Amino acid sequence: MGEKVYVGVDLGGTAIKVGLCDENGKLLQTFEGPTGTEHGVDVVLENIAQYVRKLVADSPYEWDQVAGIGAGIAGFMDIPEGFIKLSPNLGWRNVPIKTILEEKLGKTVKIDNDANVAALGEAWSGAGAGIPNLVCYTLGTGVGGGIIVNGSIVQGFKGMAGELGHMIVVPDLEAIQCGCGMKGCLETVSSATGIIRMAKEAVERGEHTSLALVENIMAKDVFDAAKSGDEVSLRIINRAAYYLGKSMALVSVVLNPQRFIVGGGVSKAGDILFDAIRKYFNEFAQESAKEGVEIVPASLGNDAGVVGAAGLNLHS
Amino acid sequence: MGEKVYVGVDLGGTAIKVGLCDENGKLLQTFEGPTGTEHGVDVVLENIAQYVRKLVADSPYEWDQVAGIGAGIAGFMDIPEGFIKLSPNLGWRNVPIKTILEEKLGKTVKIDNDANVAALGEAWSGAGAGIPNLVCYTLGTGVGGGIIVNGSIVQGFKGMAGELGHMIVVPDLEAIQCGCGMKGCLETVSSATGIIRMAKEAVERGEHTSLALVENIMAKDVFDAAKSGDEVSLRIINRAAYYLGKSMALVSVVLNPQRFIVGGGVSKAGDILFDAIRKYFNEFAQESAKEGVEIVPASLGNDAGVVGAAGLNLHS
Repeated sequence: MGEKVYVGVDLGGTAIKVGLCDENGKLLQTFEGPTGTEHGVDVVLENIAQYVRKLVADSPYEWDQVAGIGAGIAGFMDIPEGFIKLSPNLGWRNVPIKTILEEKLGKTVKIDNDANVAALGEAWSGAGAGIPNLVCYTLGTGVGGGIIVNGSIVQGFKGMAGELGHMIVVPDLEAIQCGCGMKGCLETVSSATGIIRMAKEAVERGEHTSLALVENIMAKDVFDAAKSGDEVSLRIINRAAYYLGKSMALVSVVLNPQRFIVGGGVSKAGDILFDAIRKYFNEFAQESAKEGVEIVPASLGNDAGVVGAAGLNLHS
Repeated sequence: MGEKVYVGVDLGGTAIKVGLCDENGKLLQTFEGPTGTEHGVDVVLENIAQYVRKLVADSPYEWDQVAGIGAGIAGFMDIPEGFIKLSPNLGWRNVPIKTILEEKLGKTVKIDNDANVAALGEAWSGAGAGIPNLVCYTLGTGVGGGIIVNGSIVQGFKGMAGELGHMIVVPDLEAIQCGCGMKGCLETVSSATGIIRMAKEAVERGEHTSLALVENIMAKDVFDAAKSGDEVSLRIINRAAYYLGKSMALVSVVLNPQRFIVGGGVSKAGDILFDAIRKYFNEFAQESAKEGVEIVPASLGNDAGVVGAAGLNLHS
């Protein structure tokens, strides 16, 4: 039958990406097509099945070599049952995706949420390859997270493990409201949204910054300005990094991971962000809990989703 | 050969307690004898072996039915290798306890630190029986912790997982120095030591409290005074509970455990402490991460150590 291969599905609101991995998590081939959200659930699920079959047909591998299929989806789900409870960006409620795809494809299907799957991808063959205990932060519109203990994703009681963006780390007097209902969540300062908000507020206050010349400020504008020495932008990135470092110090005495992996759009800020995160982590982490611990950028980029989804069959 | 039984060893500085458990973690029999620390390592290890043999000989079980032996020890250790790196209360450095006991007893021996073992005991047959994901706090001289994910102890990279007493939760302006070198650790306010310190400071400041009449204040004096309505004592317990609740809220978005179990001397304060912890946990925990989550007292008391040690052979 030859070596086994694994298929990962990254189900997004506009595109479905599928990828084929070998047993070591090496991404061999990918295919991407429209989700077709506007045509309803049945069409989307049929699209997934077709893209998976096409991916394998176009590869040098036989269908019989596919040992398992995994899917990463943004939203809330019942993971053991393979059931999507609510996916806001697909507009879905109560879809038994695992059962339906297993019937369509005749293979075992596992699902998990997108942040967990991305963490697993990095753990399997990305920036955490070979590291059994690690924690991933994804800094995008919000701050997502994924936790790997002994090589497996930690789900928690109701699937809320790894919701690192909702660690309350900002002191009361400086805390602002988070979308989750609480105040002072990490996400309010260390997400792209938080960085853009702080930049806009600085401009509105009339602070002396090159950002005042930018029409519609994006996170990247703040990074670029910081790299050119803009003090206000440096301060904003420093603040985002401060609370990230502080939250990692907290996580380090809870889980003592060997490596923190930081991905998502904000991580593109590069050394200017990572150097500051490391500085504050070192300042706040307990001596023994930080010994040998590394903070590194994610390495799989947008492929983390398909790789991690493929890995669900080996690591969960 | 009959049913299997497991032996747990709780190796303390003055006493060694050994216990026999069935496959469900039910404690069947115990024996306790002096550690003999003053006679050196060899004597202590021989004492352990003798107490274990005596425990089984005095029980209705045969030596052949012993399927594994575990030991819980206060200190730093290399758990996979079964090596005590440093045990301050025994005064030991670099003792390969696993190998030595395996030679003496002819059975598989596993070791872990005392806080992790106590957590495993509660998870196996105590206040967390049947709950795969839980977090234990032990409030004694310090604040210890143990984390159980999918039924197993989480060790972390260098065995520092579950060091919950060193979560920095007290804001900078109120933070005092912790024994670990950092400032604002949970342990500085929520341990017996922290409670006694706050009580003594209140008396020294001349606050109006019945504690002023107590010669050598212990944590229990503060609980008793609080139960009699002493405002200062109530405020101190409330402060200890506030930071415990806040730390649990942080842990809940990292691991989303189903249950928090609180043991150790300070937990004897009872409802007055637990009601306040629950109140602050509810105030600070993210909605979905606190859904269905319980905060309960430990139930095995001083037996948690031997039960959890016995369980090391099934859950690690």
